[in-house]
Amino acid sequence: MIFNKIVIVGIGLIGSSLARVIMKNKLAGKLWAYDNNPNYLAGAKELGIVDEVSSNLATAVKEADLVVYATPVGAYGEITRQIAPYLKKGAIITDVGSIKKYAIDEIEKNLPEGADIIVVPGHPVAGTEKSGPANGFDTLFEGRWYIVTPCKYSTQEAVDKVSALWAAAKMKVDSMSPEHHDKVMAAVSHLPHLIAFSIVGTVSDLEGYEKQEIIKYSASGFRDFTRIAGSDPTMWRDVFLNNKDTILELIQRFVEDLIALERNIRWGEGDKLFDLFSRTQKIRKEVIEAKQEQPEHEKRLLAEINRLEK
Amino acid sequence: MIFNKIVIVGIGLIGSSLARVIMKNKLAGKLWAYDNNPNYLAGAKELGIVDEVSSNLATAVKEADLVVYATPVGAYGEITRQIAPYLKKGAIITDVGSIKKYAIDEIEKNLPEGADIIVVPGHPVAGTEKSGPANGFDTLFEGRWYIVTPCKYSTQEAVDKVSALWAAAKMKVDSMSPEHHDKVMAAVSHLPHLIAFSIVGTVSDLEGYEKQEIIKYSASGFRDFTRIAGSDPTMWRDVFLNNKDTILELIQRFVEDLIALERNIRWGEGDKLFDLFSRTQKIRKEVIEAKQEQPEHEKRLLAEINRLEK
Repeated sequence: MIFNKIVIVGIGLIGSSLARVIMKNKLAGKLWAYDNNPNYLAGAKELGIVDEVSSNLATAVKEADLVVYATPVGAYGEITRQIAPYLKKGAIITDVGSIKKYAIDEIEKNLPEGADIIVVPGHPVAGTEKSGPANGFDTLFEGRWYIVTPCKYSTQEAVDKVSALWAAAKMKVDSMSPEHHDKVMAAVSHLPHLIAFSIVGTVSDLEGYEKQEIIKYSASGFRDFTRIAGSDPTMWRDVFLNNKDTILELIQRFVEDLIALERNIRWGEGDKLFDLFSRTQKIRKEVIEAKQEQPEHEKRLLAEINRLEK
Repeated sequence: MIFNKIVIVGIGLIGSSLARVIMKNKLAGKLWAYDNNPNYLAGAKELGIVDEVSSNLATAVKEADLVVYATPVGAYGEITRQIAPYLKKGAIITDVGSIKKYAIDEIEKNLPEGADIIVVPGHPVAGTEKSGPANGFDTLFEGRWYIVTPCKYSTQEAVDKVSALWAAAKMKVDSMSPEHHDKVMAAVSHLPHLIAFSIVGTVSDLEGYEKQEIIKYSASGFRDFTRIAGSDPTMWRDVFLNNKDTILELIQRFVEDLIALERNIRWGEGDKLFDLFSRTQKIRKEVIEAKQEQPEHEKRLLAEINRLEK
């Protein structure tokens, strides 16, 4: 047991997966869930992945040692305003948001002046494109990275306790500044997701194509993009709007490179295409090699794909 | 046995996978392989996936009933020029190229006037990002589509025989015009591949980022693109250069949509982002539903992913 009472606010894919880990490993004396979606709450109760559910935030967070925000980051401000008066002294707020600078701002600016509340912002870098408590599973986090991004309301003791929770979910723990986190994630996660959303929109909108034919032959490349573009709309809207500057810059860079590539094709510059594709092939090898040092990654990936494709 | 002597020209991923199917199911009296890469030829011999190998095209195709081009399409013209004088009357040429209009032009224009040679252009829509005979496997084609695109040198009998070969590899057979094939594949395969090559290039070139960090966190989205961008550089160079007009048009459409999306982000138009992402999520569901009608697809996909991630 790491905490006496944990409350998960938002019992979707990530929240419900964490709930399963906490229950399985008995990491909390009591585990509560809150969600503004009554179906999610009922689902969590029915699945038996929490001890108690409440549709009242004040009731849910009462006497909690740890409150985990597992909602889209756009909701953090409102949640903080609502729970702050009911939190006990020394309670820890943590979160799972994909962007950290905005997440921290929203929490900090809505905590009352001088409140004895500790904040440990973090990001378990894991997920699938599915949503809701029924789609969570307790091995979601295995072998993946948990990135903790301490802020001015953090204490080392709280950072360690929260990190221990994720380590119990078999995550590898890393620490960095919120700014650095957002910059790295913009490149490895936000831009790829944006491009996937965009291309799936483009291809399915093409006039002169039969949609059924696009779906029928989707396995030849398009399908891989639909998987990524099947991710939660609210979550990703919040990510793009609130890590805006970095993302806009990366889109510009991407378009610049794509236009150059378009020009190579137009002018038949095969050697330049070949050079780029050889370079990307090398990067693929590096990604594979990096994974080979982490065999647990492999198993998790397969289990996840297995689930995804069910 | 469907053919007395089959020659596979180019014993890479696709050629060697087909060779395995032919040997396993005894579809040829004799199976020969030619490749201009001595390592590939030696590999094919060592793996025991063909009866004979030859580094001489004329020797290889002598007395063959079926010659399968499994090289990048850019090589088709030269191969046809070299083998035409040595082909027996009534021999069938088929291929596995990802673009059909160009492939057919290259073969037809290099066949001597009045040669008694039959051509059955086709495309087994299957593959992984790996190359070479060691990476082939006999279940690569299972449950996937084989698209035959008859041309003026085709006969119905030859189309049926070649289709039977791919059906023996457990492919589902479809027929369409070369032009339609190239248009559909541009949308579901060529554009997605081009975008993947492009984004992997962009992300790995970003200044101010540590490459090791990009690789380390690649599982959060970037990795899926590296898989696609790890595909054979020569093959894809030839595809993009020779299905140019359609691809250039699709790039334009994609950039247009991406710029609109960029503008939505810049101006904070969350509702528009949400609408697009909800739409792409729906398309993902359609892809999944389409697959559920084809359970054998599922198994193949998992086996393939399993192999890929090994």
